[in-house]
Amino acid sequence: MKILHSTPTKDGYFMPAEYEHHTGCFMIWPERADSWQYGAVYARKAFADVAHAIAKSEKVTVFTSFEGYDTARKMLKDHIRVVEMSSDDSWARDVMPTFVKNSDGTIRGIDWGFNAWGGLYDGLYFPWDRDNRMARKVCDLLEVDVYDKRSFVMEGGAFHVDGQGTAIVTEACLLSKGRNPHMTKQDIEMELKQTLGVTHVIWLPCGIYEDETNEHVDNICTYAEPGHVILAWTDDREDPQYEMSRRCLEVLEHETDARGRSIRVTKLPMPAPVYVTEDECSGLIDFDGEPTRKAGDRLAASYVNFYISNGAIVMPRFNDENDDKAADILRNIFKNREIIQIDARNILIGGGNIHCITQQIPGGR
Amino acid sequence: MKILHSTPTKDGYFMPAEYEHHTGCFMIWPERADSWQYGAVYARKAFADVAHAIAKSEKVTVFTSFEGYDTARKMLKDHIRVVEMSSDDSWARDVMPTFVKNSDGTIRGIDWGFNAWGGLYDGLYFPWDRDNRMARKVCDLLEVDVYDKRSFVMEGGAFHVDGQGTAIVTEACLLSKGRNPHMTKQDIEMELKQTLGVTHVIWLPCGIYEDETNEHVDNICTYAEPGHVILAWTDDREDPQYEMSRRCLEVLEHETDARGRSIRVTKLPMPAPVYVTEDECSGLIDFDGEPTRKAGDRLAASYVNFYISNGAIVMPRFNDENDDKAADILRNIFKNREIIQIDARNILIGGGNIHCITQQIPGGR
Repeated sequence: MKILHSTPTKDGYFMPAEYEHHTGCFMIWPERADSWQYGAVYARKAFADVAHAIAKSEKVTVFTSFEGYDTARKMLKDHIRVVEMSSDDSWARDVMPTFVKNSDGTIRGIDWGFNAWGGLYDGLYFPWDRDNRMARKVCDLLEVDVYDKRSFVMEGGAFHVDGQGTAIVTEACLLSKGRNPHMTKQDIEMELKQTLGVTHVIWLPCGIYEDETNEHVDNICTYAEPGHVILAWTDDREDPQYEMSRRCLEVLEHETDARGRSIRVTKLPMPAPVYVTEDECSGLIDFDGEPTRKAGDRLAASYVNFYISNGAIVMPRFNDENDDKAADILRNIFKNREIIQIDARNILIGGGNIHCITQQIPGGR
Repeated sequence: MKILHSTPTKDGYFMPAEYEHHTGCFMIWPERADSWQYGAVYARKAFADVAHAIAKSEKVTVFTSFEGYDTARKMLKDHIRVVEMSSDDSWARDVMPTFVKNSDGTIRGIDWGFNAWGGLYDGLYFPWDRDNRMARKVCDLLEVDVYDKRSFVMEGGAFHVDGQGTAIVTEACLLSKGRNPHMTKQDIEMELKQTLGVTHVIWLPCGIYEDETNEHVDNICTYAEPGHVILAWTDDREDPQYEMSRRCLEVLEHETDARGRSIRVTKLPMPAPVYVTEDECSGLIDFDGEPTRKAGDRLAASYVNFYISNGAIVMPRFNDENDDKAADILRNIFKNREIIQIDARNILIGGGNIHCITQQIPGGR
């Protein structure tokens, strides 16, 4: 593995969209007792369900700690690969490399700086050095060269691309004070253009209400195909999310993408507000003397936080009346993919969802 | 990865000889401060030299702890793969899987029990659970099925095979009280036949004087080709090794192998006795309140402890007058391989040599 100090865009590399073909998917086994209630026993079941759903159409590798290996090996089917690697938690989207490819199909990784979504300013845990070292080690494992971008704080959940020159991000996240406070919006946009191989960045104002990542874009919207965005939506004007989604819609309706297309938007309904229960909070240990969550806290539930595998849309189920409606909408959009709904409450309690705990490796076919 | 409870031999698998083609080699980065003097800085240099020598003709993967990764990545060239995996020390020969293959060329691993060369009876460190878990995890990483043989204590350095039905072992090691004391010699031989795909086991009485592994066979002799064994030898009748090598020679001269061939023996001279120095001992931290070595202790130095890579014989150099003589003998035997001599004193201080810190993955071509 070579550690590269140039930039992907200059070298002819770009990030393919998630709906393009993958050679596989990475996940990280949940173990942290302040993130995952009751020693992560419920989260593990949900993670295993996600892994098995994705593995129906692509290779899945799950990373675990030394201590977690035996349990992971037992709970995951034989065709899931389990590999030891130290981490601080289980957010593969944010700590795995972002993969870029060139016109020959050669793959390289980007090793962003990771500081637990805000570092000492408003990050969610400390330390985060194990997470921050994963991307490079994953590239080493895969034998692909890696771009050293550790000086730029970024997470995979903070951007989406259409694979044709456009990225979508949120100002709430990328301009947050805990990431790259010394950089202007223009500096950050330039950095994204140099690393993701995009020529145009769409800046949404915000994401999902109470999203602890400073409102990652991957919880509020995603690309369905070039020129077509799926946006989390509520019609409940009393919900703070209504105004947030509306402001995003307004931006999207007035934007064009890198190829000059206007953006078609499909609204994906949200579940009714989801609150963490007393019992769930009782299952979480404190972090640094503080409870991670308090009973009644609202969780950032959104159906948009799904993973596009080669053969399926692996999406969250919240046991809400909109579960089937959301599935039907996605079924209608992704006609060649199976819709697999996973009970995701025990992922959501940890602070994210299915897209957050997965990272695709592009290539193949 | 499937965990198999049958036996390789019954399934049509056998262990190929080391001189057959490899797809790669595994090593483990030295880090233990009670094994490797002065915080392993010298050992790392020697391990890197070995990795680079082997990597001239086959892929090398070096496992490290989380803490060791950055140093390993820096000291090892780009084309060496560095992968995190927990271990207790650095003896890849003994803790990696033994690989077997079938007539289709499919590879499987054997996950032996490992107890640090004698467990609580006369093992060399405690605990050894990280080591004992490596073989299975390596098979998982490679996506090859693994035989669960953890109930049988065995190390890769405790046997050699000719790839044509014969294994060589030592009684001193295999019948030692710290390994499988409940098993008879016949039980152990049966187990080897069932796992290595051999039909005949040659039992040498002993190995190298003061060899802490209870005299592993890979320090006293090795196969050069079917029917041809290289034996560590000294002409110094005052040296306790003389009688030990002589007894081994006597067995070999009266043995036939699985194919009915008598054994041709090439004597490989040993270096003059090597003793650990005061300064070297000062660089080792105590283990459990006891010094690992005392100044003047004899080290189990032997040229036989070399690795056969696809393109080379990677052999120890002791800065002894027999260095070149031993190299010439091996050059004459392995005519199609380069002879690469590595200054191995800093591996020897840890208790083994080049063969002990490597494990080949058979297959290819």
